[in-house]
Amino acid sequence: MNRIEIRLSGFGGQGIILAGYILGKAAALYDHKHATMTQNYGPESRGGACSAQVIIADAPVSYPHLTQPQVVVAMSQEAYTKYAGELAEGGLLVIDQDLVRPNGDGQRMQVRVAGIPATRIAEQMGRKMIANIAMLGCLAALDQTVSADALRRAVRESVPKGTEDMNLKAFERGYEHGQKLQYDLPGEA
Amino acid sequence: MNRIEIRLSGFGGQGIILAGYILGKAAALYDHKHATMTQNYGPESRGGACSAQVIIADAPVSYPHLTQPQVVVAMSQEAYTKYAGELAEGGLLVIDQDLVRPNGDGQRMQVRVAGIPATRIAEQMGRKMIANIAMLGCLAALDQTVSADALRRAVRESVPKGTEDMNLKAFERGYEHGQKLQYDLPGEA
Repeated sequence: MNRIEIRLSGFGGQGIILAGYILGKAAALYDHKHATMTQNYGPESRGGACSAQVIIADAPVSYPHLTQPQVVVAMSQEAYTKYAGELAEGGLLVIDQDLVRPNGDGQRMQVRVAGIPATRIAEQMGRKMIANIAMLGCLAALDQTVSADALRRAVRESVPKGTEDMNLKAFERGYEHGQKLQYDLPGEA
Repeated sequence: MNRIEIRLSGFGGQGIILAGYILGKAAALYDHKHATMTQNYGPESRGGACSAQVIIADAPVSYPHLTQPQVVVAMSQEAYTKYAGELAEGGLLVIDQDLVRPNGDGQRMQVRVAGIPATRIAEQMGRKMIANIAMLGCLAALDQTVSADALRRAVRESVPKGTEDMNLKAFERGYEHGQKLQYDLPGEA
């Protein structure tokens, strides 16, 4: 069975859970795969590190526990420190390049690291809260577990009414950034 | 470690995922416990059985997979058939009594079964979509894993703006129903 584990992480208020929700929805409803999304509450939901675990598979996911993710997205230094080390060999680490300084702590050597100025893109567009969607766009360009078109549809259906176009624009900005990175990443064929 | 596993289930459109989200939020933010909520997508998100898995514990939940829930809520016959059997010995099964006819299939003998007319209550109040909150109110009366006050706060903060009062009223209707049931349930002290 093909099974991909993805960890999205950052701090509370960045829309990490919504991004995870959208990722699972896109995979299941539009790419016709199976998916689960697990969110942790606890102290992290009161402002600290925040994480969504998404599992996407060809068959029903009976075990939604993340063992060793192939993809980790970290949108804060704390999230990077906490989760970068769990990435599988050869996996993909996507960071917000303005918020995370990779120091190699606990990070495997054999991973691909992609930096995207997601929060800066969002601020330039006047809405910091859409950084999560710019990040999803970047992820769509770098990892094809979920198709970009499925993600676009899920974004449109999941963000607050009236913000669809702005969110989709942020998605495209992230996507373009990711496409450029794709050719520079070490470890890419 | 004290760990309680709860399965909420029904069909798509009943607000099962929102109910699960509220349950986890109430436990973590207002009862100061740890919680995870896992939602399944897949064919079930296109109209079939729908389920949210909530785990509430005294310490961080590192294993969000439900093994044998102490509480199962079933708001559809299909959900009952699929999930009633996994309930732990001595556990609590809450069903929408107008939508589920318990037939004992796969259901352990040593469980408590509580019926609540959640959908009927919601329809009487003019909004079928609040049946999930009436169900949460009933659950709060029958099982004290999450306090009723924490749930009230989480309901108020999680339902769409403008519907808070109506949802809280549905919660109280369910709660009162649950309190009455509490004294009738076989297996109760």
